[in-house]
Amino acid sequence: MGTLLIRNVQLDGRTTDIFVEGNRIARIGRTEGATADRVIDGTGKAVIPGLVNMHTHSAMTLLRSCYEDVPLKAWLDRVWAVEARLDEDAVYWGAKLAILEMLKTGTTCFLDMYWMTPAIARAAEEMGIRAFISYNFLDNFDHDKAEKQYAECEAVYAQSRQWPSRLQFCVAVHADYTTSEATMLRAGMFARDHDLVFTAHLAETLSETQEDVIQMSLTPAQHFNRLGLLGPQTVLAHGLWLDDHDVELLGGTGTTVVHNINSNLKLASGYRFKYNELRDAGANVCIGTDGAASSNNLDIRESMKTMALLQKAWREDPSAMPLDELMDVATVNAARALGIDAGRVAEGALADLVLVDTCSEAFVPSANFIGNLILSANSSCFDTVIVDGRVVMEGRRVPGEREILEKAEETARRINKEQ
Amino acid sequence: MGTLLIRNVQLDGRTTDIFVEGNRIARIGRTEGATADRVIDGTGKAVIPGLVNMHTHSAMTLLRSCYEDVPLKAWLDRVWAVEARLDEDAVYWGAKLAILEMLKTGTTCFLDMYWMTPAIARAAEEMGIRAFISYNFLDNFDHDKAEKQYAECEAVYAQSRQWPSRLQFCVAVHADYTTSEATMLRAGMFARDHDLVFTAHLAETLSETQEDVIQMSLTPAQHFNRLGLLGPQTVLAHGLWLDDHDVELLGGTGTTVVHNINSNLKLASGYRFKYNELRDAGANVCIGTDGAASSNNLDIRESMKTMALLQKAWREDPSAMPLDELMDVATVNAARALGIDAGRVAEGALADLVLVDTCSEAFVPSANFIGNLILSANSSCFDTVIVDGRVVMEGRRVPGEREILEKAEETARRINKEQ
Repeated sequence: MGTLLIRNVQLDGRTTDIFVEGNRIARIGRTEGATADRVIDGTGKAVIPGLVNMHTHSAMTLLRSCYEDVPLKAWLDRVWAVEARLDEDAVYWGAKLAILEMLKTGTTCFLDMYWMTPAIARAAEEMGIRAFISYNFLDNFDHDKAEKQYAECEAVYAQSRQWPSRLQFCVAVHADYTTSEATMLRAGMFARDHDLVFTAHLAETLSETQEDVIQMSLTPAQHFNRLGLLGPQTVLAHGLWLDDHDVELLGGTGTTVVHNINSNLKLASGYRFKYNELRDAGANVCIGTDGAASSNNLDIRESMKTMALLQKAWREDPSAMPLDELMDVATVNAARALGIDAGRVAEGALADLVLVDTCSEAFVPSANFIGNLILSANSSCFDTVIVDGRVVMEGRRVPGEREILEKAEETARRINKEQ
Repeated sequence: MGTLLIRNVQLDGRTTDIFVEGNRIARIGRTEGATADRVIDGTGKAVIPGLVNMHTHSAMTLLRSCYEDVPLKAWLDRVWAVEARLDEDAVYWGAKLAILEMLKTGTTCFLDMYWMTPAIARAAEEMGIRAFISYNFLDNFDHDKAEKQYAECEAVYAQSRQWPSRLQFCVAVHADYTTSEATMLRAGMFARDHDLVFTAHLAETLSETQEDVIQMSLTPAQHFNRLGLLGPQTVLAHGLWLDDHDVELLGGTGTTVVHNINSNLKLASGYRFKYNELRDAGANVCIGTDGAASSNNLDIRESMKTMALLQKAWREDPSAMPLDELMDVATVNAARALGIDAGRVAEGALADLVLVDTCSEAFVPSANFIGNLILSANSSCFDTVIVDGRVVMEGRRVPGEREILEKAEETARRINKEQ
């Protein structure tokens, strides 16, 4: 079992050492004379738990900034046209680019909803990140398509038993306006039977929410509830358009709701995310970037800043969304949703750690480290990333990054050109 | 007259060379065999005009993240208590820290509203940035204070004749709710008589706006107009709470309005900035960060992203605030307000240039450079900064930066401690 020692690092304002054994934090405290297979000098750096991106579509990095400043309908048409041309190779390089970006911005774990699950798993396995990779149901109310997808889901799940432990299979339903109730139920049952995380989009736009009410006299949250799909292993992305009863349902079932503020702003979906209400009702609130086609990047730290600013602004309360809760949203809340002991720098927890270089103008004055990290710095402050006890970025270098940039660029040209 | 040659740099998607003579761009185009006093290799980089921060309080960097998540009243009380302890030395180091931060984030010019103008001018002179530094009137309706300030303003203006040409003196009035009409008029007259930029805060909060209406039956914009203070040399910060008539007044007079979105969100001042309306009415819209006490950093690129996102969101239109207009807001519009030929990469213009390192995941795919720069990258992409023909940052290194961090940290501890 490999060992790793981080010396002289700042943790909660004190200098300490962190000793990692295998994939867990074994000891925190001064370790005079101790040695390890690998030693990292933490001088001038602070350690934080790795950030978790709880909603993204990894390979959409290939569509980054290809269509800007266009109305939503035109944007979706273009995105779907390009996505129809994706193949395994494209998804693989798109996912590699996404993971590179996430590591560089301090993310150690992500929950993905995209196509061609095995290609994404291969990218994540190679790059050392922790990942929850879903098989994504979207049947367009077509029974044959649903059958095909169900068979595929079972096959990929069987394959996933060979994945390393830091990769976990999960089940996604795109949304209730694209997928039949029968498929939603079957997907949910599959997740429950195999003890897997279940994820879906929920109430991202006002129009989809109103459509549900018109057609079923149910809001999307009520619809998911009626199908028995809410609960502590359910992760719902967006949840922008919720009424009081929806908040109660999500809270009462301990469901996770993932806020994707940058994407919501850019696509003009809404911004009055009910953080306080969901938290108080008992829901587990996390944060995600959404795909790079809408959010442009996969930078969770940047999204945390935007989330804080928007909560303060729309609630007209500068004390809304305090920094300590914001850190929880991006770390421990995510770990809770995913059922892993991560998101904290503590003995026994998984060693998913990030070292922050504090020797820059963004961290002066130094009085408030978390304030500086989230509100003042940019994500080039992340120097070293450790996932599952293994160093995957050091001195901002990720092995193979040049090849990833080249291949992703080539791939993006190929899939964007043919239209 | 010194010369500078930037070789093999990307400009609007083509590779070219840029030849700088003295403080101006002399020639753009391939320069086989040409030489210069200094040659920079632009391979893998793109050139943009330097960004302009049109509203800040530079030395407030010393108050960065010292008070977070508190209601506005408590925040202001704390900020004012610390500001009362500022001395020349503190303002000097706070301004150095601010300028370091601005250079690192691609800003080549700023308009400052703060105290102890000479200390700020000294910092700006040493660091090579272009700066418009105002003497700031705030008399609290106290006649003696006003007299003292007027004498001081005249003295600093006289001194400013010795400043290098890239530093310019201007006149500020803090706001109409802190300063008497007599002083506002006198300050405005001083600016006009000496052909100086005039700047002030305007309609930042709803309460100050309502207060004006209650007390004078005038909105703040109408108040400034009645005093004859609107016009092309007037730069008003915030302008968040404007009615249709205000927009007409600001537009009709060609006044500049500076949007400070991050600060406005954080202090919950508002976010429905009327960009389209002001632009259409003929006002000149620019962007600023405000002071680091409220915005946490002085990163104009980051503010540009937030501005785009918020315009799309509150207008419920994903095509609002297109990227090309956003670049103008941060460059040529600012140059117009300040009366300088900058904000564009063109022969004859001032050589205020920034080289962007595009060899990173943020710029892949490469199809949309400006989209990637503003929406995907963080400001560590700024590699080289040239102001007035002189290289002031290269390879992200600014001379003397370590000393600035140390002295600013010391100074912040000193002024924050004594409360």
